Amino acid sequence: MGSVLIRNVLLLTMNPQREVFDAGAVVIEDDTIAYAGSEPNPLSRCDEIIDGQGGILMPGMVNAHTHAAMVAFRSLADDVPDRLQRYIFPLEKKLVDRRLVAAASRYAIAEMLLGGVTAFCDMYYFEDETAKVAKDIGIRAVLGETVINFPSPDSPVPYGGLEYCARFIPQWKGDALITPAVAPHAIYSVDAPHLQECSRLAKRFGTPLTIHLAEMDYETEQCLKQHNMTPVRYLDSLKILDDACIAAHVINADAQDIELIKARKTGVSHNPGANAKGAKGVAPAAEMYRQGIKIGLGTDGPMSGNTLDVLTQISLTGKIHKLYHHDRALFPAVELVEMGTLGGARALGLDRLIGSIEAGKKADLVLLETESFNMRPRYDPYSVIAYSANPGNVDSVWVNGNAAVRSGKLASADSTKIKYDFSALQAEIREYLKNCG
Amino acid sequence: MGSVLIRNVLLLTMNPQREVFDAGAVVIEDDTIAYAGSEPNPLSRCDEIIDGQGGILMPGMVNAHTHAAMVAFRSLADDVPDRLQRYIFPLEKKLVDRRLVAAASRYAIAEMLLGGVTAFCDMYYFEDETAKVAKDIGIRAVLGETVINFPSPDSPVPYGGLEYCARFIPQWKGDALITPAVAPHAIYSVDAPHLQECSRLAKRFGTPLTIHLAEMDYETEQCLKQHNMTPVRYLDSLKILDDACIAAHVINADAQDIELIKARKTGVSHNPGANAKGAKGVAPAAEMYRQGIKIGLGTDGPMSGNTLDVLTQISLTGKIHKLYHHDRALFPAVELVEMGTLGGARALGLDRLIGSIEAGKKADLVLLETESFNMRPRYDPYSVIAYSANPGNVDSVWVNGNAAVRSGKLASADSTKIKYDFSALQAEIREYLKNCG
Repeated sequence: MGSVLIRNVLLLTMNPQREVFDAGAVVIEDDTIAYAGSEPNPLSRCDEIIDGQGGILMPGMVNAHTHAAMVAFRSLADDVPDRLQRYIFPLEKKLVDRRLVAAASRYAIAEMLLGGVTAFCDMYYFEDETAKVAKDIGIRAVLGETVINFPSPDSPVPYGGLEYCARFIPQWKGDALITPAVAPHAIYSVDAPHLQECSRLAKRFGTPLTIHLAEMDYETEQCLKQHNMTPVRYLDSLKILDDACIAAHVINADAQDIELIKARKTGVSHNPGANAKGAKGVAPAAEMYRQGIKIGLGTDGPMSGNTLDVLTQISLTGKIHKLYHHDRALFPAVELVEMGTLGGARALGLDRLIGSIEAGKKADLVLLETESFNMRPRYDPYSVIAYSANPGNVDSVWVNGNAAVRSGKLASADSTKIKYDFSALQAEIREYLKNCG
Repeated sequence: MGSVLIRNVLLLTMNPQREVFDAGAVVIEDDTIAYAGSEPNPLSRCDEIIDGQGGILMPGMVNAHTHAAMVAFRSLADDVPDRLQRYIFPLEKKLVDRRLVAAASRYAIAEMLLGGVTAFCDMYYFEDETAKVAKDIGIRAVLGETVINFPSPDSPVPYGGLEYCARFIPQWKGDALITPAVAPHAIYSVDAPHLQECSRLAKRFGTPLTIHLAEMDYETEQCLKQHNMTPVRYLDSLKILDDACIAAHVINADAQDIELIKARKTGVSHNPGANAKGAKGVAPAAEMYRQGIKIGLGTDGPMSGNTLDVLTQISLTGKIHKLYHHDRALFPAVELVEMGTLGGARALGLDRLIGSIEAGKKADLVLLETESFNMRPRYDPYSVIAYSANPGNVDSVWVNGNAAVRSGKLASADSTKIKYDFSALQAEIREYLKNCG
């Protein structure tokens, strides 16, 4: 891979001082950032020099919660109530297999990279397929294999995911890009003994555990009724809330829940787009952020949030929370960009490796072009990112030092082939839907 | 101009039956839609045949409320309280002149066209400059010259906008693209006699009147205190609320206000992005829509909402109102797309001309490419538009039969020149800001 100099960029480091360099440059050596700061003069000796053309170079964005392969079902049965039970679970039962997960994950990963996402946390079935694809295209990922209380697409028996995890995790443990994980679906779909078994498994392998938490109104109702505790406190009572736990959504959380999450150093994925589209509620993201909780942004599955890019989540986080708290000064743009980058890295336990542009960290970078009309003026680059940018402005993306996107095109995989395989899948799904009415 | 056939598109007509043609085509003759429906076989004789490559052809989107030239100040002083009085008015006083309005309007119009906006309703100063630019690039516009109670950038005396209107309106009245209008700023910045004078002027010329209404908390407070009426009822008491009135924002409106707006056939621009970013509140858009009020979507000025595209507003309208009403079935995607197209046309009083793709209407059209990853699958094209698309997916735009955008590039003006002039402006603004600290 050698050394690469990226010059002529407005560099947002997101380092502890939040340094910004107007005429900035970054040197990548192999997979690592060797230099980040003002443009060196004379220019370093590098194998490759890339002219950023005055664009904004920022840390790669982190999608802290998704179900990548569900992109196969995007735009199906939107705007209907109770779709998880009525549509999603039945569809998955019929249609999800190893081939679908591979083709759809590949498609979703391409879309994430093109939108500036360099790392994601997934929860789905056949995660070994997603791992292979992620490794192949070159994206960083925490991949949680689902454990759930009914026979699932990749297991004929309830809770078969536990065995799947026991095979999957050792295969990928220690990989430079892939972190395998255990993903109990939720407290309403995994009973206490199996939640604890998930936790034991994660601890045994030293991997993260990720779970939907305090997402659904019925989840809180049932939990209060059955356990006389909120979902967060219930999970903590099972000793699952710890610093290796990544909790997705966390909407219905009170002050004491937030205290607990902070005390346990649990990571949180805030998913404003999916929470809003699904009318689930406004998570206490501002409170969690203010308390220093490890909170990042997630798209949720593309059947829920319909996009896979974090720029949209950055923008929505600002808009929704300013509106909800009736405070336009809440979540200034720099904090929003932080949540989409460093915040996500912290939530996933990857902040020693990624999340900011600092010498010694892995080279996960995004270059936004600022030639498009919507990207000017640029009085405040954080504002540009948080309020004006869209995924179409992503010019280049590097993951672990490798160029994954250049000039808005996938560089590390064959777009045509990915789309072709995905189209074939679509045709089969359409056929199935036609036959079942 | 001759005749153009656009074929091989998924055609969303937004006609009264909301017909969708999977293999659709449109024939444009000069400025008018001559045919819209299934692809004709054999193909019509046309001067030009355009292959839509399977994209989505939809009515041009309508930005029902903006201040285009304020793009010059975008990304300045975001996230600060009370910025209208503290930043926007002072900045305008110092910096806004004829040249700024021309260059910045041109820039904003280019950005709107590139984002799929084919018509917009503006409120600003030097609207004759905006008119010239709009006509030159080729976009449809209702242009409201501002009337306000202090000396403004284009008038040395308070309420000088009235005289400006009296010169500006006759110059442009009857133009194929431009509808000149009177724009009293708001009820808190225009007193009752001058509001009535604005109304008389608009009636005399037979032009629309557009005003910020029920937008600010202090507006409602003052109005209740001074007039013992809500802003909507106050405006109605002055006989200004009528079917030529376009009210922007309408956030603080109760059931009786909504009844009044309906009875008076007043148009409404719902501006969810700016309302959210400015923490202004959730407008009763769902109630207004349900009552059949002429309601469209606006970006507000790019210093408030930071984008100039309606796709973002379509998406936000769905997300914010589903969330606020805790009802994921509210505003299904087809209704969201309707608000961004036909709804806006109705609000602006232009629905006999535009807003849907029907033979006899003017050819204001948008072609979204569906080759990008985020635009597939396409089980429901309305969902794709409302929840997955971004302005980067706009491939082609026609206004009044003329191609304004082709392959994502401006076709009706020189992008480089527009950006160059705008950069010069930016440099001057930066210099000014530096000098005043």
